[in-house]
Amino acid sequence: MTKQYHIEFSPIGRRGNIPDGHSLLESARLFGVDLTGDCGGFGVCGSCQVRLLAGDVSEITDNEDMLLSPDDLEEGYRLACMTYPGSDCKIGIPPESLDSPMRSQVESEDAAVDLNPAVYGLDIEIPTPSIDHPLADADNMLQALSSDTEAIPAIDLGVLHTLSDDLRAHEWRMRVSVHQQRNGIVAVRPPGAREVGLAVDLGSTGIAGYLVDLCDGETLAAQGMMNPQISYGEDIISRINYAFKTPGGAQTLRNAVIEGLNKLVGELCEDAGVHREDVVDVVIVGNTAMHHLLLELPLKQLALAPFVPAIGRSLDIKARDVGLHVAPGAYVHLPPNIAGFVGSDHIAMLTATAEQWQGKTAIALDIGTNTEISLISQEGTIVSVSCASGPAFEGYQIKDGTRAKAGAIERVLITPNDVSYETIDHAPPLGICGSGIVDAVAQLQLAGVISANGRIGENAHPSVRTAYGEREFLLVQAYDERRAITVTQDDVREIQLAKASIQTGMQLLLAELAIELADIEVLIIAGAFGSYIHVPNALAMGMFPSLPLDNILQVGNAAGAGARQALLSTVVRDQADDLMSRIRYIELARHPLFSRTFARNCRLRPYKQ
Amino acid sequence: MTKQYHIEFSPIGRRGNIPDGHSLLESARLFGVDLTGDCGGFGVCGSCQVRLLAGDVSEITDNEDMLLSPDDLEEGYRLACMTYPGSDCKIGIPPESLDSPMRSQVESEDAAVDLNPAVYGLDIEIPTPSIDHPLADADNMLQALSSDTEAIPAIDLGVLHTLSDDLRAHEWRMRVSVHQQRNGIVAVRPPGAREVGLAVDLGSTGIAGYLVDLCDGETLAAQGMMNPQISYGEDIISRINYAFKTPGGAQTLRNAVIEGLNKLVGELCEDAGVHREDVVDVVIVGNTAMHHLLLELPLKQLALAPFVPAIGRSLDIKARDVGLHVAPGAYVHLPPNIAGFVGSDHIAMLTATAEQWQGKTAIALDIGTNTEISLISQEGTIVSVSCASGPAFEGYQIKDGTRAKAGAIERVLITPNDVSYETIDHAPPLGICGSGIVDAVAQLQLAGVISANGRIGENAHPSVRTAYGEREFLLVQAYDERRAITVTQDDVREIQLAKASIQTGMQLLLAELAIELADIEVLIIAGAFGSYIHVPNALAMGMFPSLPLDNILQVGNAAGAGARQALLSTVVRDQADDLMSRIRYIELARHPLFSRTFARNCRLRPYKQ
Repeated sequence: MTKQYHIEFSPIGRRGNIPDGHSLLESARLFGVDLTGDCGGFGVCGSCQVRLLAGDVSEITDNEDMLLSPDDLEEGYRLACMTYPGSDCKIGIPPESLDSPMRSQVESEDAAVDLNPAVYGLDIEIPTPSIDHPLADADNMLQALSSDTEAIPAIDLGVLHTLSDDLRAHEWRMRVSVHQQRNGIVAVRPPGAREVGLAVDLGSTGIAGYLVDLCDGETLAAQGMMNPQISYGEDIISRINYAFKTPGGAQTLRNAVIEGLNKLVGELCEDAGVHREDVVDVVIVGNTAMHHLLLELPLKQLALAPFVPAIGRSLDIKARDVGLHVAPGAYVHLPPNIAGFVGSDHIAMLTATAEQWQGKTAIALDIGTNTEISLISQEGTIVSVSCASGPAFEGYQIKDGTRAKAGAIERVLITPNDVSYETIDHAPPLGICGSGIVDAVAQLQLAGVISANGRIGENAHPSVRTAYGEREFLLVQAYDERRAITVTQDDVREIQLAKASIQTGMQLLLAELAIELADIEVLIIAGAFGSYIHVPNALAMGMFPSLPLDNILQVGNAAGAGARQALLSTVVRDQADDLMSRIRYIELARHPLFSRTFARNCRLRPYKQ
Repeated sequence: MTKQYHIEFSPIGRRGNIPDGHSLLESARLFGVDLTGDCGGFGVCGSCQVRLLAGDVSEITDNEDMLLSPDDLEEGYRLACMTYPGSDCKIGIPPESLDSPMRSQVESEDAAVDLNPAVYGLDIEIPTPSIDHPLADADNMLQALSSDTEAIPAIDLGVLHTLSDDLRAHEWRMRVSVHQQRNGIVAVRPPGAREVGLAVDLGSTGIAGYLVDLCDGETLAAQGMMNPQISYGEDIISRINYAFKTPGGAQTLRNAVIEGLNKLVGELCEDAGVHREDVVDVVIVGNTAMHHLLLELPLKQLALAPFVPAIGRSLDIKARDVGLHVAPGAYVHLPPNIAGFVGSDHIAMLTATAEQWQGKTAIALDIGTNTEISLISQEGTIVSVSCASGPAFEGYQIKDGTRAKAGAIERVLITPNDVSYETIDHAPPLGICGSGIVDAVAQLQLAGVISANGRIGENAHPSVRTAYGEREFLLVQAYDERRAITVTQDDVREIQLAKASIQTGMQLLLAELAIELADIEVLIIAGAFGSYIHVPNALAMGMFPSLPLDNILQVGNAAGAGARQALLSTVVRDQADDLMSRIRYIELARHPLFSRTFARNCRLRPYKQ
């Protein structure tokens, strides 16, 4: 029998055994790790760089000698396609070596708002100064503006740095961009330039960025990327720990995300055919920890009871103070955080879906590694919780899990003797994404292959087998060089825990406001994963309450939509501030009923009154 | 005869011949250059560093090898006490090797104002957050503040960085400093801390800094220093040229002054026994070029007709954007610039002396390398000019000139056959300071030694002699190792030009408003030099109009006083803004009558109708 090595890919939590003679790139592909490999594995493009964290591998090849710097080689960097394990290995994957982001990361409905952006533009022309009228350049411009603005705005130092030369270059005509709430000039550009805004949904795993034309509300470009902080910890808690325990750790995390955002802005601008300097306003939403890491705010009080943010209310901060390279005087607007573990992304989701829940008894939730849930009463009382639902829904910590990309199994149907599945783009199967694993577990349950407590029955289905000492369900046979794709007992447990977490959050919220399950008029499911989930299957396992399907809305990345709306309308910003002041946060883990409810909810069965 | 070398010290404009065998430190002292020399010239303290710019000197000694880095030696740095000229030399003096600043730089009257500082403090105590009331730290503080402030202030990102830890360290009690005009929290410190402000008069040659207690208006510390930019050019024009012609030159100049200011703040804080973080507000006044160099604003439009500033109106800029290390969220207030060559220091002088000129026909002038003059009508019309009066009044470009320090000749009396003088602190004479050279020239004129056109008569006085081909007047005989101190024909010319420049400015202003000289009710003389000048002598040569002495006020560094007042009262800031909008600036050099008037004014005679 061929020798086998156990390979673990970090930080994305994929591991398994491969036979001797497979390169790291092949191993990665067998495990569904989306390593870049532009040249097809010939060691000439250098795009599949990985880092050897533990174990022995083959000698450094000439190609690697040529493509990697001596420093990189010294630090263990290798080309995955040229490197063959010689023992069990732990392999680190730098974010830049990971392939395209998930398909769903940036998708969301374009919720229309009445245009009233915080930053608006004015085309003006000013008189040329002379010896007889030697008016200073900025004063000259502000005088010309005074007829168009209520109060004379302040001018940013960054704008002043180039104003005098620009005025002369454009013959005293210019486009002035004014932040109406801060009453400040954030950019002066050639006449006719348009105002562009950047909206960012800053997730722990993925970042979605949107460029929006502030003059007509159109989305000019959208793009997703991995959060580069993932190299320092997959989830928030491990990143906070990194920040605590590593000297300069908080700064490293901040620099990682800022560098990523600056790259994202560059790419979005290229897509949209605009300049960085055209980005005159920015809105960033994210969970509270991402917010604090971005601003390098203290984290200790966030990690210790009573888990309070450094700041909850919304902030306008100069982009340069955040480290973002856009228009010289642009602000970054950060909508309010509700609590330590319910951030501005949840607020943005709520403002984006307000039409759906206003005046109703509603539950709105954003599913991710943390799932934030709000229960809204008809009178507008709102209570929120955060549930640690884990990364299973994003395809992590699932043995054959993958992000939602071409080839990911997203639908599963299991009959007593058969299995069928669908993959994204109908590509050959390479793993199971979040919606696929929910489908698989629900179908296993409906087909009686697993019991309500999640145990895979030994002879419950022809596809049940035992591999490496663990019982699992075979979804896809091994073929060519690809391993079989299976759902393991551990995978089922992950989904049970995640489902229990969400269900418990909802139950405790309902108890808090003394609302009956039957009174829920609408359930809003937001988030990349939530928009692709097959709701009937999720209902079967009890992840959501069993409401009529018409009352369940899948709204996609509503946080991203809310961020864009906040770019386009100060009214939306005010709504967010208002929401923040009204929402009451409940600390779930400290709730006296939490443990008991959680344990009960691990059972797979519909969630009814 | 001993060999002689011509030594020129740059950038302070002192030069002369010394016999072979004198060290550079001895030469410097002979020429009245105030080189630091803490160890007394034994080559052990390293404080008398100079830089060889041209010429040959003695070999590098072991002491220098030990005290100077190889890089420094490579760049020509030497210890002046260990280095002996071997040819004519040009020697550069870094600002840190120059001795204590002029005595008069920081002196000015403490003009009282009603306290209404832009930044005020509040001691508050806030509730400890709990699981049941997990209010975010900043929100908690702002809620507590809301009863004390009109609108809830914004909080600075820099303050947020330490707020959470500080609140816990001080058990939820704190001192909050609020900028009332910007409605922002600029600092949060332990309870009971006081608000301290920094006022800076940023001159081309000298910088005066003051720490002021914003709670009671008291000046806690005052200190002067050389403007470190002097290494890159003695006057404004040469610095602007440096900024244009040297890649990164503007940044170098900015860094030099910021580094100097940060050092000054450190020393002032040490003097006053406060921390940098206690400095919650800053006012900086200076001429327009200094203002622009500080903020790294464009200079081209300032140097070319019609000579307009990048900005005239007042600015509040975050201290961190300027590069100043004080309280995290502090602003720097920069009062308005009137024109390219009349800056906020002139405005500050006008607000500080408003009580003296209000409702009168008045002339107010601030004498320096540039002399700014305002003519004020009884109705409050104000016209201003800037005159290039040169550095002679500050002791530069005068052969035996020196700054106004102990040993500087400040008073001169010349009778037909005798000469007497007084030095500052009655120390042995080492040179002539600004007020001394004005006295000397006026006394020479009154004694008939020089004619109205400035020529030194060949046998007009026993002290007239010819040295190195130039006619000069011997003030102090050579003694011990010190050279004789003389007033040369060139020195007289420098004073004539400076005097003509100021007189011309006044005459053209009077013509502009059609005001007669006889109508002037008050003449206000501000500036370090202006406060020590012997007015009757200045009147004799026609530097100022011949008003009754009671109507001539010497007010010292009124710009520094004005800066302190702006720290203590927003009313003063408003007055400055109002003045700026009312003052009309006249470009002197372009005036059709300028050349003719200037030439006539070179004559030394009283300035009467």
